[in-house]
Amino acid sequence: MAEFTQEEKEYFMREALKEAQKSLAKEEIPIGCVIVKNGDIIGRGHNAREERQKAILHAEIMAIDDANENEGSWRLLDSTLFVTIEPCVMCSGAIGLARVPQVIYGAANQKFGGAGSLYDILTDVRLNHRVEVETGILETECAAIMQDFFRKNREKKKAAKQAAKEQS
Amino acid sequence: MAEFTQEEKEYFMREALKEAQKSLAKEEIPIGCVIVKNGDIIGRGHNAREERQKAILHAEIMAIDDANENEGSWRLLDSTLFVTIEPCVMCSGAIGLARVPQVIYGAANQKFGGAGSLYDILTDVRLNHRVEVETGILETECAAIMQDFFRKNREKKKAAKQAAKEQS
Repeated sequence: MAEFTQEEKEYFMREALKEAQKSLAKEEIPIGCVIVKNGDIIGRGHNAREERQKAILHAEIMAIDDANENEGSWRLLDSTLFVTIEPCVMCSGAIGLARVPQVIYGAANQKFGGAGSLYDILTDVRLNHRVEVETGILETECAAIMQDFFRKNREKKKAAKQAAKEQS
Repeated sequence: MAEFTQEEKEYFMREALKEAQKSLAKEEIPIGCVIVKNGDIIGRGHNAREERQKAILHAEIMAIDDANENEGSWRLLDSTLFVTIEPCVMCSGAIGLARVPQVIYGAANQKFGGAGSLYDILTDVRLNHRVEVETGILETECAAIMQDFFRKNREKKKAAKQAAKEQS
């Protein structure tokens, strides 16, 4: 298991936040992810579902795919996955399947989280791979970018409704 | 929800089994999947993890990606996913995220199944999408191809061990 100082954890979470900003720029739900091995980023990903019209293109899936490509292996042993928001059920399953031993996430996802909130997939003793999970790194920043996105989305919808009303 | 006759269900499960045969030919765990909409196959997939060295390349993920591509949409409404073996946790999550309303699988996966065995992800009322699940279509054939693969794998390993012993 890789050991990180608090400063290193925050550094890599900021890199994940940079990925989340890429989603935000495309008006996608802003979640970002990086995978780190021996101090290097070996995979990056950001949510791109709407842009690419692919249901599976969550930040973690894109980062795992990128890391598999760069490593030439489906096994991401000795790596750490940093993600801004708690992984969903699909992504928690993918993390285990890719043999990632350590996950650090920013803020919890109470509605859909598969790594502590709805399910505890990463620490399930029945599965053949278990993952060490840490949370709370840059939690405020990771949650704020999401809240901001959803608030603006609601305002946009409200404005569109109002405009439609005025035209009718 | 699409209605299928028993004959139609078996027809599409045989198409999924054809996909599983593609995995078998590459010495991969033989699982296959097709996604059907209005009587047509809109997505196909087979497990290709070893060949492509990608952890996420399960049959269902490949089929969902293929169907998203062909439909030009991440939402696979009004579709039915046929898969030879019960989806794992990752794939069950992906099926919900792609809004697939109906899953028909051949044989259960007692060790890793996310659609009834270990978890009930597809019917979890806390998640925002629920899926109708049916099982048992061509169950014997779907299980047999897996058992055959694992038996041959064990024999191969045993023979390799024996050969190494004789050489030493």
